[in-house]
Amino acid sequence: MIDGVLLYDSQVSGNCYKVRLLLAQLELRCERREVDVVRREGRLELLGELNPALRVPTLVLDDGRSLGESNAIMWYLADGTGFLPTDEFERALVLQWLFFEQYSHEPNIAVARFLLKVSAEPADPARVQALQRAGYAALDAMERHLATRSYLVGERYSIADIALYAYTHVADEAGMDLARHPATVAWLARVRAQDRHIPITA
Amino acid sequence: MIDGVLLYDSQVSGNCYKVRLLLAQLELRCERREVDVVRREGRLELLGELNPALRVPTLVLDDGRSLGESNAIMWYLADGTGFLPTDEFERALVLQWLFFEQYSHEPNIAVARFLLKVSAEPADPARVQALQRAGYAALDAMERHLATRSYLVGERYSIADIALYAYTHVADEAGMDLARHPATVAWLARVRAQDRHIPITA
Repeated sequence: MIDGVLLYDSQVSGNCYKVRLLLAQLELRCERREVDVVRREGRLELLGELNPALRVPTLVLDDGRSLGESNAIMWYLADGTGFLPTDEFERALVLQWLFFEQYSHEPNIAVARFLLKVSAEPADPARVQALQRAGYAALDAMERHLATRSYLVGERYSIADIALYAYTHVADEAGMDLARHPATVAWLARVRAQDRHIPITA
Repeated sequence: MIDGVLLYDSQVSGNCYKVRLLLAQLELRCERREVDVVRREGRLELLGELNPALRVPTLVLDDGRSLGESNAIMWYLADGTGFLPTDEFERALVLQWLFFEQYSHEPNIAVARFLLKVSAEPADPARVQALQRAGYAALDAMERHLATRSYLVGERYSIADIALYAYTHVADEAGMDLARHPATVAWLARVRAQDRHIPITA
């Protein structure tokens, strides 16, 4: 049974927010250690033993074992709870959406948001536009799926919804709008209405 | 129990190779349907009902259910076999490496390889160089980890090794070399020596 955990965290990171939101909904205690996501010096010294990719979030259990990658951390925390299905095929569909998020969604929407909102450097407009275009393709894929569904997998809230909520709900900060994605907007409201929901700023 | 499967496949794709290799090692029958990864017209019609990201590989089970994302497909096929650990934390570490692969490794090494080897368009040298630089950072992370280990997780061959073998073993086709990564080169040989191994060209 998981008791307290240490989270190498960033307040502005949607990837970290996924873990914070799930921890809140699981009512697990968490000590947060803020890591700078703009100035990345010293990452190898800070996270070298804990996370091969030297990124946040990184989770450290009270026995010292550590885990990287937001969606792997969520899987570990959620397994055996109501936030992850028990059916083998539904579990695979959750993974499908988690990989979709990290490959087709986050690298576009999160990076556009980083360039426009977080980074102090001026953003290259052509690069931002290319990211937004690819980000809209990811939103289109979600919209096709959510047009006939309440949640991403098995008609039930799961870590797949948390993963895709993280950066979809701040797409405006990536200079994008959801006017053409009404099913996705309705789904965002369903996610936000879950018990013990917390905002990204919490 | 899984019997025959249909795989929307691409001969040149390392992501598809992961699934082909695991299917061979599990001795599962597979019908392959080749999909063009350069000319992408008609993807929505072909894969729209099967895979939200409209990508290959896409797996279709004999009951018609379908699954996208190479690493989700491998997880589904491997669960309950010797290719995926049973310990909960080791399973989470396998996922950590699968997400690392799709976020930090494949988008750099596979894309550089695509631009240099697969695409008919002339490659932008500055873009290729940036991808190679980020690809080397991913190889450095693997090298740090494999310096003291035989396999990525639990000292045992798993789908984490298959996932990272897929594009690491063709890094030369991305214009990269592994001279500074001796532990990774030794690990590649251990992966290649597994029972029922098949090459990417099979």
